[in-house]
Amino acid sequence: MDLEIVTIGTELLLGYTQDSNAADIARSLAPIGVRVVRRSTVGDDEAAIRQLVVECLERTGFVILTGGLGPTRDDVTKKAVARVFAAPLELDNDYLEFLRQRFARLGTGPMPGSNRSQAEIPRGAVVLSNPRGTAPGLWLDGALGVAILLPGIPNEMRGILQREVIPRLRVRLNEQHGHLRVTRSRTMRTTGVPESKVADRLTALEPALGAISLAYLPGVDGVDLRLTAWEMPVHEVDGALGSAVALLRPALGSDFYGEGDVDLAAVVLDRMRDAGFALAVAESCTGGGLGARLTAVPGSSEVFAGGVISYSNRSKIRDLGVSERLIEEHGAVSVPVAEAMAHGVRDRFATDAAVAVTGVAGPGGGTPEKPVGTVCLAACLGEHTSSLKRWFPGSRSEVRQRCAQAALDLMRRRLEGAV
Amino acid sequence: MDLEIVTIGTELLLGYTQDSNAADIARSLAPIGVRVVRRSTVGDDEAAIRQLVVECLERTGFVILTGGLGPTRDDVTKKAVARVFAAPLELDNDYLEFLRQRFARLGTGPMPGSNRSQAEIPRGAVVLSNPRGTAPGLWLDGALGVAILLPGIPNEMRGILQREVIPRLRVRLNEQHGHLRVTRSRTMRTTGVPESKVADRLTALEPALGAISLAYLPGVDGVDLRLTAWEMPVHEVDGALGSAVALLRPALGSDFYGEGDVDLAAVVLDRMRDAGFALAVAESCTGGGLGARLTAVPGSSEVFAGGVISYSNRSKIRDLGVSERLIEEHGAVSVPVAEAMAHGVRDRFATDAAVAVTGVAGPGGGTPEKPVGTVCLAACLGEHTSSLKRWFPGSRSEVRQRCAQAALDLMRRRLEGAV
Repeated sequence: MDLEIVTIGTELLLGYTQDSNAADIARSLAPIGVRVVRRSTVGDDEAAIRQLVVECLERTGFVILTGGLGPTRDDVTKKAVARVFAAPLELDNDYLEFLRQRFARLGTGPMPGSNRSQAEIPRGAVVLSNPRGTAPGLWLDGALGVAILLPGIPNEMRGILQREVIPRLRVRLNEQHGHLRVTRSRTMRTTGVPESKVADRLTALEPALGAISLAYLPGVDGVDLRLTAWEMPVHEVDGALGSAVALLRPALGSDFYGEGDVDLAAVVLDRMRDAGFALAVAESCTGGGLGARLTAVPGSSEVFAGGVISYSNRSKIRDLGVSERLIEEHGAVSVPVAEAMAHGVRDRFATDAAVAVTGVAGPGGGTPEKPVGTVCLAACLGEHTSSLKRWFPGSRSEVRQRCAQAALDLMRRRLEGAV
Repeated sequence: MDLEIVTIGTELLLGYTQDSNAADIARSLAPIGVRVVRRSTVGDDEAAIRQLVVECLERTGFVILTGGLGPTRDDVTKKAVARVFAAPLELDNDYLEFLRQRFARLGTGPMPGSNRSQAEIPRGAVVLSNPRGTAPGLWLDGALGVAILLPGIPNEMRGILQREVIPRLRVRLNEQHGHLRVTRSRTMRTTGVPESKVADRLTALEPALGAISLAYLPGVDGVDLRLTAWEMPVHEVDGALGSAVALLRPALGSDFYGEGDVDLAAVVLDRMRDAGFALAVAESCTGGGLGARLTAVPGSSEVFAGGVISYSNRSKIRDLGVSERLIEEHGAVSVPVAEAMAHGVRDRFATDAAVAVTGVAGPGGGTPEKPVGTVCLAACLGEHTSSLKRWFPGSRSEVRQRCAQAALDLMRRRLEGAV
């Protein structure tokens, strides 16, 4: 089944507001067998919306719209679509009562008069209830096709989409198709290895993937591999994706750290929790970013004891016990200093394990021997200390992000005994 | 002048890749007097691209496209648009030579054969040079109107847009319009004050804004105020926006901290640098996020000495000198403990100033007296210490972000003598 997505808002056209709704909707549709063939955006302009909706219905007979359902004069989506469907707006007393009670519950005073317009429903439309806001979702089904109207506020849109729209679309698809075809993906995450090396290892396996496509998605945190089964019969798709993952997994070895949108920090914390280890960090160039990554994970306090942000040599010496001579001899950005920082913070926090980072994040501070992007990392666990020196490309922010990811990865490999 | 933006890519339709290009282009166009009237996205499908480009040209006679200019079979944008303009693709030997030299400079081996297709240029098209990649931008001008083709990789797109497209559009606009009208915005940033309170103070001033609209944009970091002059004569717009900013500024008082996309961390660092102060941080619930905010600013090492991530009571006592009795008496999340943490890290790092945060970020750890979202902050500068206790709504990530912003804001107000 094909459809189009339309997002409405002058702010979207100006580019000040990022349109996250269209991608959000699209990601929910492919896995159930709906193909989005076009996305469009117009401003809060009744004539422009009418023209676009007519075009969409002519092309695919099915359109999902978001935005322009609020109570103000700007919000003209409902009016425009109602006119396309020749469905007059009629006051829905049940919905009006629901709105009144909602305002009473909030205790912020009586319902403003402008909200009354949100209880006006195009004749024949199905109301899709919105527990998170005042604008109802609407499902219009007429001679021209189907139009689904959703509010533009992302969490309201998402709630109605998941609870009201997706189940109805599933029913419709089962009615229409004996042999439903869906598009689904799985993502395998790797880090610490360049895209070309991953590709070298997987090229020989690609023919065996058959109908499943493999995309390389290099990013600051590593190379993700997206396996996609395109329009495959619904009873085959999950098995086929599972086989594809199993085929590639051995070739990725210890460069693979998880699936989907798993965070490397959570992987490291889980393994340490299982082993009963405690962790501390010593940060120079990341300035707290490594601790922030770890503590972004709920429950991290069971494993993470804390750390020291040593943004000066003085702090490295005073707070981490790095010897002044070591810094003079090798420089603050060096493997020996990174190792001494890791040992120092491990001893201070009396943990089993520690990670340390020191580097030149830029834009200033580079030298011919240690250009911007040079970083040294160390991870110690029990008696073992692993360390490495790298050069990372990119802006200050990218260097810092790559640095935190590489430090977490060094600890993960240390935990696996792979370094 | 009106135009449409088209972004091309099957990945965009699936929603896995966020389309940042369309918004990026739009934000650059309104200030020079170009109005985007529609945005559309289709997949890497030659017929669909052709159909969409014809529609755009019929509506506005001007379209900017991004994506699908790469060297692989998927990339069909150039072919599709060339057919619409009836312009055959011809090998451009100069561009081919440029590509060969580019590969030679990179030293990654000879140019792959597939890149040769990128030197095929539609007859009559102007090549817009792309210093950051291999796909050239193209400007086609024919009987149907104008189509500009840009690569989909954001930093390549942005480079060509700014250096090649915007200057040509300016020339075109000056030729076409004696009285050019443009849409421009300015944004005033506030924090630490709810939207309703900002609105109460500004409502009386709104009529004096005249043709300039005022939008309230509440977010995790505070409430931004966007002033927009819509399609105003180009020689009046900057003056009108300047007057509007000057009108609102006094009413915002010390809740205002800067304009545009200024970062509060940079504001605090600038003021401390000017005064010759050094800063340290003590973090519990933010876990390094406050240090990461500060050190994200280039040159922060001139002011920021470092800090301690005290993710346990033991570290607060050992590393920051907080007394065990104080924690027993008031709890780790309390104003007295926040103040003791600030004093402790100031003394350890021998700085003039320090900021400390302690709180319950959730989702676990809340109690009836101190529910999830409870945070205590302290900022000390010389002899003065300011502190506050707040309850922040939202997820763990939002609580932590609000916490770092509020801590920076407390230091800013301390520096201004406003707390």
